[in-house]
Amino acid sequence: MVLYIIGLGLADEQDITLKGLNAVKSSSQIYLESYTSILMVHDFKQRLEELYGKEVTLAHRETVELEADSILYSASSSNVSFLVVGDPLSATTHTDLILRARTSQPPVPVKIIHNASITTAIGSSGLAGYNFGQTVSIPFWTSDWKPDSWLERIGENMRIGCHTLALGDIKVREQSIEDMSRGIVRYQPPRYMLIPQLITQLLSAAASHKVDYLDADKTLAIALCRMGSEDERILSGTLAELLAIASPSPEEARREEQEDDEDEMASEAELEARRAKRAEERAKRVYGQPLHSLVIVGARLHPLEREYASTFKVPGSKWDQVAREAYKCKE
Amino acid sequence: MVLYIIGLGLADEQDITLKGLNAVKSSSQIYLESYTSILMVHDFKQRLEELYGKEVTLAHRETVELEADSILYSASSSNVSFLVVGDPLSATTHTDLILRARTSQPPVPVKIIHNASITTAIGSSGLAGYNFGQTVSIPFWTSDWKPDSWLERIGENMRIGCHTLALGDIKVREQSIEDMSRGIVRYQPPRYMLIPQLITQLLSAAASHKVDYLDADKTLAIALCRMGSEDERILSGTLAELLAIASPSPEEARREEQEDDEDEMASEAELEARRAKRAEERAKRVYGQPLHSLVIVGARLHPLEREYASTFKVPGSKWDQVAREAYKCKE
Repeated sequence: MVLYIIGLGLADEQDITLKGLNAVKSSSQIYLESYTSILMVHDFKQRLEELYGKEVTLAHRETVELEADSILYSASSSNVSFLVVGDPLSATTHTDLILRARTSQPPVPVKIIHNASITTAIGSSGLAGYNFGQTVSIPFWTSDWKPDSWLERIGENMRIGCHTLALGDIKVREQSIEDMSRGIVRYQPPRYMLIPQLITQLLSAAASHKVDYLDADKTLAIALCRMGSEDERILSGTLAELLAIASPSPEEARREEQEDDEDEMASEAELEARRAKRAEERAKRVYGQPLHSLVIVGARLHPLEREYASTFKVPGSKWDQVAREAYKCKE
Repeated sequence: MVLYIIGLGLADEQDITLKGLNAVKSSSQIYLESYTSILMVHDFKQRLEELYGKEVTLAHRETVELEADSILYSASSSNVSFLVVGDPLSATTHTDLILRARTSQPPVPVKIIHNASITTAIGSSGLAGYNFGQTVSIPFWTSDWKPDSWLERIGENMRIGCHTLALGDIKVREQSIEDMSRGIVRYQPPRYMLIPQLITQLLSAAASHKVDYLDADKTLAIALCRMGSEDERILSGTLAELLAIASPSPEEARREEQEDDEDEMASEAELEARRAKRAEERAKRVYGQPLHSLVIVGARLHPLEREYASTFKVPGSKWDQVAREAYKCKE
């Protein structure tokens, strides 16, 4: 029988293709991979089950690694569907399962059903797919772990004038270091990187490496939020503008600081958590719920790209001026 | 009402998403863009019409440019669907229509429904999307027009170790220069670049520019043919191997040359056409019908990528040896 590896597309259960849906309906077992991305609707597992009229099993990273043999064994006697949000093979995450299927005895036939992913949705920014260089992933920084090898990748793109798609980190089923050290299996709430944090890390890495290709006021970018969903949001501007629009006004900042000062019982950790929560709420007010990605515009910006993406610019943006002066993009 | 710009996905009418199909069914007019790509099934217009239960109008480049106003006028009073093979916004081809819709008075709401395109299907090669640089398009050369600016783009990718997706040219509704000069509106049969011609142009451009990043025997590549279709074909090897597999054997070559020599009535042009036809047939025997694309492997080749793509290697290929020696890819 067949192991189907099926892309669910960008946003909700209606983004599956007819071919994908037929494959699911022909399958006796259906796994939903749940560690590289998410569907952007509530109760998505139930919505899938309702559409398919079948039970769907959430497959965590451990499940897939530990139960690969049992998944393949099922696929030897009946069709099995393995669902992945977006396109199923955008990363090499699932190549191990596929290789094992192909090399098992007898081999399990594998069929890939592709779908849209954020790498196709970038077209909605108005920038041409041809002008994009390599894609980068921006991981969450912690106080003592700030990986930034992605910065050099952006540099490689920028030096040849290419745009960069920067994907915000996704953390699901994370365990805290405290729990892990005590042997407690308990998962943290899922976390998704939002635009302001992504830009903050970009600028911080750029500053500490003193690079010349990222500048808060001279680098244009386009925030792509919840692409393909009903409340998709696209905003363009300089990095500084995209950050400012989700920052507190001076008055708000003053009021919040005063609130914090007056709460004398709060520990520094509590205050820190409170500030992070406020920042997250502001980010979601402007950019919506996750998933968020950012396109960093390269020097090859074409007038048609500039014009289209300009329709998304934040109020008061210097988009066109920066395009003209820093990017030398013709009107 | 809404102007839907809908991706049809890779191969046939079953690759549309449920969301896309619903949009089509809600539309009073349905256009199928027919100049940037094709569905890889016979009678695709009829198959779409059968699935939708509605008439589909083929939209040629002229139609869209000339009738944009009438398309937008229709969309002001009822839903209109504009179908594009693959993802609808992979190139900026349709941004003009969308911009006009957004800026018309009153504006026509536009909704993009994304889908898989060849840029998502590259995952089937076993190479990670993250490791791809910019995509290039390889246009058909003629005897006196051999554009090769795409070579420098490949070089930019190769120098930073990135893989390159090279798309073969598509020519539909082309007019011959003779017809055009006589004012005759008559179209040539559609032409699609096949793998051997694509590789031949690559190597020829590389030789004439004396570049060091493309070498028939030391550059690995993966042919992606009819991706997403029932008869999808993926073959990997060095550029020379991928070319050789569609070349005549010495015996065949001798026999064909003899045939040509014996046909004393044939003009040089006829012989040329005959040779081209033989080459095309051989290419299709090995790689299948169009559409064909080629992935040129960059230095960043990862052992997992090497292993997966190795499952597609042509008989007798030095894939693993070249990966080890020229790419320094660990076993």
